[in-house]
Amino acid sequence: MTKPVFVVISGPSGVGKTTIIKALLSRRKDVIFSVSCTTRPKRPGEVHGRDYFFITKDEFESMIERGEFLEWAEVHGHLYGTPRKFIENAMNEGKSVLLDIDVQGAMRVMKTFKDGVFIFIAPPSVQALVGRLKKRKTETGESIKRRLKDAKWELSFIDRFQYLIINEELDEAIYELDSIITAEETKVTRLLDEVERYKKEVLESESG
Amino acid sequence: MTKPVFVVISGPSGVGKTTIIKALLSRRKDVIFSVSCTTRPKRPGEVHGRDYFFITKDEFESMIERGEFLEWAEVHGHLYGTPRKFIENAMNEGKSVLLDIDVQGAMRVMKTFKDGVFIFIAPPSVQALVGRLKKRKTETGESIKRRLKDAKWELSFIDRFQYLIINEELDEAIYELDSIITAEETKVTRLLDEVERYKKEVLESESG
Repeated sequence: MTKPVFVVISGPSGVGKTTIIKALLSRRKDVIFSVSCTTRPKRPGEVHGRDYFFITKDEFESMIERGEFLEWAEVHGHLYGTPRKFIENAMNEGKSVLLDIDVQGAMRVMKTFKDGVFIFIAPPSVQALVGRLKKRKTETGESIKRRLKDAKWELSFIDRFQYLIINEELDEAIYELDSIITAEETKVTRLLDEVERYKKEVLESESG
Repeated sequence: MTKPVFVVISGPSGVGKTTIIKALLSRRKDVIFSVSCTTRPKRPGEVHGRDYFFITKDEFESMIERGEFLEWAEVHGHLYGTPRKFIENAMNEGKSVLLDIDVQGAMRVMKTFKDGVFIFIAPPSVQALVGRLKKRKTETGESIKRRLKDAKWELSFIDRFQYLIINEELDEAIYELDSIITAEETKVTRLLDEVERYKKEVLESESG
């Protein structure tokens, strides 16, 4: 008997977030991935409702007005937002939800979703991150420099998060993420209905 | 990269604490069991240093005076105490420590060991607990009645604990205990040395 949780995962680009999350989702059918809304055009291979909800600028702005985003931001002229309803629906169905978001986005979510679980995934060292970015063939010298600058800035916010996963061994990192979700699902503060149930049962058996 | 934690496990008699803890210890070599001191005589099969540290009343009282117990209590004329040094030594060696203690003892530990992790193990229901106690051939009608009364009283303290494991399926309960230990080991508040290390590394690479 556990309760679903909303888990926000953040950390520098290149740290392995996507790999860890994919592995976690494939082993835990009770956890789903939070799909964001965006106004940017769909790229080849992307699927509406799986990668993003691709919506128009008008639709996005109406959602902002109706307070339907946990957080949203404009990046390179396109709007990106985390729809609150998607997360609430999943949790009402008993599923925990994972959101993969940049550090600034995570800090915006902290303000609006107090019960969220905030996890920072860090590289073993800044040097190790440089090594990983260099191995990605898509990165140029200029983009590595920019990502590294961002990473250093992001690392300075670790202490705003609740958990720190240092991705040294992939299997260990997946196990730690799995453990954090499960542990949070057993927190007494999330199981107050169960606690009440015991108290009621005890009272009834006293009078019976 | 994680930090060891001190985990206090409590819950009513007959709930399956011992079984869960034994299974956990057999699968995690980085976790050890906290051995208590007692002045009660050794029973056949018990081993000094494994089941208890069997010490004299004088020795016990000196330890109280020197503040060497995290908590202690007198039960049926015998003294029982949790030695602080045993736990600290294990944690300094990088091991997490499990303490199995009654609910009152756990609440005493909460006052002296603020960084501890407090887990309550509960039966699926009060009725289920009665069923389990009846199956134990060592229990008489009278002792079942007394244990049940204690259990009801203990269940009213669940909300003082941080985590609630409902022991419905043994494997699930073991997995939840394992997860709680691992999750707590990755808490940012326990990894502040690592957080400092990143900040230092970032600063050094800026100036370099």
